[in-house]
Amino acid sequence: MKKHTTTIRLHITYLFIFSFVMGFAQKSSEINTHPNLILTQKGVEDIRVKLGSVPLFDETLAETKKEVDLEIQKGILVPIPKDMAGGYTHEQHKKNFLTLQKAGVLFQILEEEKYAIYIRDMFLAYAKMYPTLPLHPQERSYARGKIFWQCLNDANWLVYASQAYDCIYSWLSQKERKYLEKNLFRPFADFLSVGSPQFFNRIHNHSTWGNVAVGMIGLVMKDQELIDRALYGLPEDNIKAGQKDNDGGFIKKPGDKAGFFANLDQPFSPDGYYTEGPYYQRYAMYPFMIFAEALQNSKPELKIFEYKNGLLLKSVYTLLNLTDDNGAFFPLNDGQKGMSYKSRSLVSAVDIAYYFGDQDTSLLSIAKEQGKVQLDATGLAVAVGLKENKETPFIKKSIELRDGAKGDEGGLAILRHTSKENSTALVFKYTAQGLSHGHYDKLSFSLYENGEEVLQDYGLARFVNIEQKNGGGYLKENTTWAKQTIAHNTIVQNETSHFNGDFETGSEHHSNKYVFDVTNNNVQVVSAVEKNAYPGTTMQRTLVLIKEEELEYPYVLDIMEVVSDKKQKLDLPYYYSGQIIDANFEYQVEESLQPLGTKNGYQHLWKVGEATLSQNNAQFNWFSHAKFYSITSAVEIGDQVIFGRIGANDPAFNLRRDPVYMLRKENTNNAVFASIIEPHGRYNVVSESATDAYSNIDKVSVSYKDIAYIAITITYKSKKEKLFLLATKDASSTKEHELKINGSTYKWKGVSEFTKIKNK
Amino acid sequence: MKKHTTTIRLHITYLFIFSFVMGFAQKSSEINTHPNLILTQKGVEDIRVKLGSVPLFDETLAETKKEVDLEIQKGILVPIPKDMAGGYTHEQHKKNFLTLQKAGVLFQILEEEKYAIYIRDMFLAYAKMYPTLPLHPQERSYARGKIFWQCLNDANWLVYASQAYDCIYSWLSQKERKYLEKNLFRPFADFLSVGSPQFFNRIHNHSTWGNVAVGMIGLVMKDQELIDRALYGLPEDNIKAGQKDNDGGFIKKPGDKAGFFANLDQPFSPDGYYTEGPYYQRYAMYPFMIFAEALQNSKPELKIFEYKNGLLLKSVYTLLNLTDDNGAFFPLNDGQKGMSYKSRSLVSAVDIAYYFGDQDTSLLSIAKEQGKVQLDATGLAVAVGLKENKETPFIKKSIELRDGAKGDEGGLAILRHTSKENSTALVFKYTAQGLSHGHYDKLSFSLYENGEEVLQDYGLARFVNIEQKNGGGYLKENTTWAKQTIAHNTIVQNETSHFNGDFETGSEHHSNKYVFDVTNNNVQVVSAVEKNAYPGTTMQRTLVLIKEEELEYPYVLDIMEVVSDKKQKLDLPYYYSGQIIDANFEYQVEESLQPLGTKNGYQHLWKVGEATLSQNNAQFNWFSHAKFYSITSAVEIGDQVIFGRIGANDPAFNLRRDPVYMLRKENTNNAVFASIIEPHGRYNVVSESATDAYSNIDKVSVSYKDIAYIAITITYKSKKEKLFLLATKDASSTKEHELKINGSTYKWKGVSEFTKIKNK
Repeated sequence: MKKHTTTIRLHITYLFIFSFVMGFAQKSSEINTHPNLILTQKGVEDIRVKLGSVPLFDETLAETKKEVDLEIQKGILVPIPKDMAGGYTHEQHKKNFLTLQKAGVLFQILEEEKYAIYIRDMFLAYAKMYPTLPLHPQERSYARGKIFWQCLNDANWLVYASQAYDCIYSWLSQKERKYLEKNLFRPFADFLSVGSPQFFNRIHNHSTWGNVAVGMIGLVMKDQELIDRALYGLPEDNIKAGQKDNDGGFIKKPGDKAGFFANLDQPFSPDGYYTEGPYYQRYAMYPFMIFAEALQNSKPELKIFEYKNGLLLKSVYTLLNLTDDNGAFFPLNDGQKGMSYKSRSLVSAVDIAYYFGDQDTSLLSIAKEQGKVQLDATGLAVAVGLKENKETPFIKKSIELRDGAKGDEGGLAILRHTSKENSTALVFKYTAQGLSHGHYDKLSFSLYENGEEVLQDYGLARFVNIEQKNGGGYLKENTTWAKQTIAHNTIVQNETSHFNGDFETGSEHHSNKYVFDVTNNNVQVVSAVEKNAYPGTTMQRTLVLIKEEELEYPYVLDIMEVVSDKKQKLDLPYYYSGQIIDANFEYQVEESLQPLGTKNGYQHLWKVGEATLSQNNAQFNWFSHAKFYSITSAVEIGDQVIFGRIGANDPAFNLRRDPVYMLRKENTNNAVFASIIEPHGRYNVVSESATDAYSNIDKVSVSYKDIAYIAITITYKSKKEKLFLLATKDASSTKEHELKINGSTYKWKGVSEFTKIKNK
Repeated sequence: MKKHTTTIRLHITYLFIFSFVMGFAQKSSEINTHPNLILTQKGVEDIRVKLGSVPLFDETLAETKKEVDLEIQKGILVPIPKDMAGGYTHEQHKKNFLTLQKAGVLFQILEEEKYAIYIRDMFLAYAKMYPTLPLHPQERSYARGKIFWQCLNDANWLVYASQAYDCIYSWLSQKERKYLEKNLFRPFADFLSVGSPQFFNRIHNHSTWGNVAVGMIGLVMKDQELIDRALYGLPEDNIKAGQKDNDGGFIKKPGDKAGFFANLDQPFSPDGYYTEGPYYQRYAMYPFMIFAEALQNSKPELKIFEYKNGLLLKSVYTLLNLTDDNGAFFPLNDGQKGMSYKSRSLVSAVDIAYYFGDQDTSLLSIAKEQGKVQLDATGLAVAVGLKENKETPFIKKSIELRDGAKGDEGGLAILRHTSKENSTALVFKYTAQGLSHGHYDKLSFSLYENGEEVLQDYGLARFVNIEQKNGGGYLKENTTWAKQTIAHNTIVQNETSHFNGDFETGSEHHSNKYVFDVTNNNVQVVSAVEKNAYPGTTMQRTLVLIKEEELEYPYVLDIMEVVSDKKQKLDLPYYYSGQIIDANFEYQVEESLQPLGTKNGYQHLWKVGEATLSQNNAQFNWFSHAKFYSITSAVEIGDQVIFGRIGANDPAFNLRRDPVYMLRKENTNNAVFASIIEPHGRYNVVSESATDAYSNIDKVSVSYKDIAYIAITITYKSKKEKLFLLATKDASSTKEHELKINGSTYKWKGVSEFTKIKNK
């Protein structure tokens, strides 16, 4: 303890003299000393002074020390690369870069030389091996790495290792530095950039990692060539038009720029929505934010956090909004369920956003949930804020997130309704394709209550880092099932996916918002139009989140209009979960199960049962998460219902066996699917009491439809009747409308109106 | 506040004078005054004195007051009986009896007359209606009620209503009492007893409710005839031999007695195990315990809690032990999953056991989890204990519970292994049939970790109190699926259920324990034998819960020997959950799904895939609850594996779509199934890291087998080899054994030995 105090005093003295002597030159001087990437000399001093007094920082530090000490005990393990993700060599090298970064931080904060020695020895082992390495023996990637099966993971390595190098830079001898840079860091950066242009020179999360890896080591080595490559890409790359990666994504589209700035410009919308979706936004967030922090520390003149109206900071908020009540990201496009803002990349992002933003105290409550901080000045600031109980709730409101670099390529809407007892979130997707990880699911939506799925998005078909399942990589069912339209809660025409599942076509188009209006919290409306998914067909979906005073929970009114230039077969699936309780129509179950179709995902659905409806109102009731749910639909006589289950043609059991309820219309060129999705009641298994096990809705019907209007009548079991009126072709909020329905005249202003039925 | 204090003072004074004046006569006087059933005058006084100072009691009281006040606001609702369970009239009458009982307690404790008035008015409404009631219009029950569709629920009504009557007995005028007894209580009790002998005069949880209903009202009314009926049953009942109830259970077996005592004598084993299983034990626990409390209060000379070596108190502990880490009962026989010791009947039982037992402080920690107490002297004592922080952990150990009145009809074993990070529970069933709610699953077992199912028991096929599903009653799939052998983790011979699914035959037999030895916590052994399930076939199953120092979790060694007088087809299913990761054998999935068989439950299983093994070691790996699991089995070339899923021939979607992994041997009269069921590793979805995703077991093999011994060799991936030696025909713990295996000689004492393989 005594020694420690002395050290602190000494440092404070140094700092004082330093500040005094250097005077105006301080800024550039700081830049020329190490650490100066993520940690800075000033930041480390601040941390050392506060050690032992800031609980969350101290806890994270103690945990980190425990982890790293354990790794040091195990010794330096740098195996010859061999395995896929999940396998030994992959996992060991991954463990190494994570430990390197942590050991660097520990060396700086705790000043124990063992950490520097460990890093140096590890680097020397890599430096000895690296020049001898051919491409990784696994041949699956379009851009094979050397340490790992793909460049992407090699880039991960360098992003973390650069930080460790910065931390021991001044401690190493010049000779050691020269050796490491010559044998390891520079060739590593060259391999990732000029050696792998198809990886480096793209608009893609892969490239962001590559750019940042090269940029980070460039900053540490003060290598302007590398820094420029990172920021602006390679001037030449010889990437051919139409060249694709192994996810089927284009390497480059005509006109694409490259480098860190280009990857900020193009995939991010002005609302901070990243076109690949939240799962990959989360993944890219670490390189984006950590490099921004590094740039802010070493090149403050770039004002990186102010770039594009503070885009990077905005994107952190966007990502936090793209989560359910557990903090898990909505699994849009390729997304693994369960991934959440508790991941380490979001710990960094939240801390950086707090520190370099305006110390928004609502971020502190997220940090509190995360339960750890980044071990630098940003994390210290967050931990101090929490120590001082400054946190305020992070409130997720209904929000619209535009897609596209200019915000004009459709978007995503989240409607939320929150009460003391219940929280509902509806996620409606009318974005652009979303690059290679995009799914063909225009106008699909998913529904959540209290962090549980009510109507699910399947997410990706992949067991990330579970080696037995295709080395942890994407499964072929990701393409044959998860990306297909039928895997989502949206319209499929003639059993073909949107854009016929063609990535090139899909990438040329996006849906368009029609209206997003959440001014009335109890009648929130979003509507969007898709004209390109099926040539000749226009789909407009309107989703209304309605909370009636007398009903316990909000329900969703789902109106899907499909107008086509010829007769089509239309399917509208709803992926519910749990057990079927009842239906108000006769149905038959199959005696043996056949796949529902032969391609476009239909081959993966078992047809379990069906009904041909002889009525105009279909109600289906199920039980899940101790709650009852109903879908009540306006249907036409002769419409079909299909009960299905995922799992056909799945020879390696790669798919979850989830159920689906599907409405089908044959031979229609002007169809309306109007349904209410309604949670109601609950079941207490301990008291064995069922409350409100029946739907509150008696009937849903389309009471008016022409080219410019649609009206839906909702009849409650209580006999009350309500009318939802929508102008479908004029999104003006001031336009006055008048419509005569069943002899009564309705007048309203703006796009929609939810009102009582008038007595004739 | 002031008024309240005065009241308390007054009562204390009264009590003092009362005690003084009454002197020696107090005991019999107490018996002759009301309340004297569950509440007593002394108990109520104690409660009033402590009001406001005992948090858990006060909270329960406040909650109860809130509930009852709400019901009083709604007014007296006594509809003409019409609906099945889950329907309006059923639920309203159920609500009524629960509210009546609570209102009675509130009247006594709070002395607010509105509660007495509410009860009186409710009783008057029932008294007006009751004499006019025919049998309930729903005709499903073998013993139809009047208020409800079955006498059972009518008995529920009277058990609760009796307590309310006792609470307002002294407050009512004699005229009112006479009217109510004549028009409601006496005819009600007569209808349940002499009017429904097939319901009243059985050994069954139904009859316990009936007996207690009649006994409780008898005690309040001081009607010795009713009390005698309750305790000893009807002397004559005219029940015919072979008469069955609507669950297919016998009404009466030759020699069966009846009444409360008979229902204590016959279905309870000396270990407090109730032959129907924990779900029904829980259900019957309320009448058993509440009537015992009433008898202890009003007829202390019976010493009911000492009856049969304190059987009632013991049975409470038994029930608490029959739970997983969440307090949910193991769903043996007909049991609804999720039902737990937080149910109201267990709140009563635990409080009564604490008060009338020896104030075991471990019961307080259960009460703390329950979060509420019974509003009487017993609950007060518990709440005071908790206020004084007296609770100690309730530790569930490995335990053997014998079945049968004399404890000689097989039993149930629970093996548990608990560490700081993990808790494992294995439930092995070798009981008797378990009356009409019994399943045909001799030697089946289920496996739990940390309160999650690893290998499940399906439980019942019923949606209790969800009206849409057969009025909340048992579904036909309970018989065609849930009770059948193939629905359980045990042997099925030639696709027929044990005892050919015949209740009469099953009721004549039970399995027999061979050994239960948990002296070594790291090698816990249980073994049992079944000779009657299939005539000519003997099955012996040995389950060993093994914790190896170097492995993270314990695993189960499962040895099933099946010896038959002729060649048979044998199936051994394991009902896992989650997703299949891998298998070490080639398998084929089906292009279309057919039911696995035509009857005995097989008609409900879809055959999803199969393998014919060309190796002698089969390993199957799955993923569930963020953990990996493997089953590694010694098999013979030509053995089959079947992948199945529940759900075929289920026209109303009554069954869960759960998966099964099944081992099949054809044409064998001397088979051993030897498998290791092993949890390993974990997956963190936020860090996307998989740890120990591969099994630690390389191979399981039968290295020795003759008529008296079996030896299983376990080869770990680490190359270590272990041997499990078992004497299969001599359960002596002192007998010395010697066996030569592969040239090495092994000597041990007692039934089994787990040891390293000797080098030859």
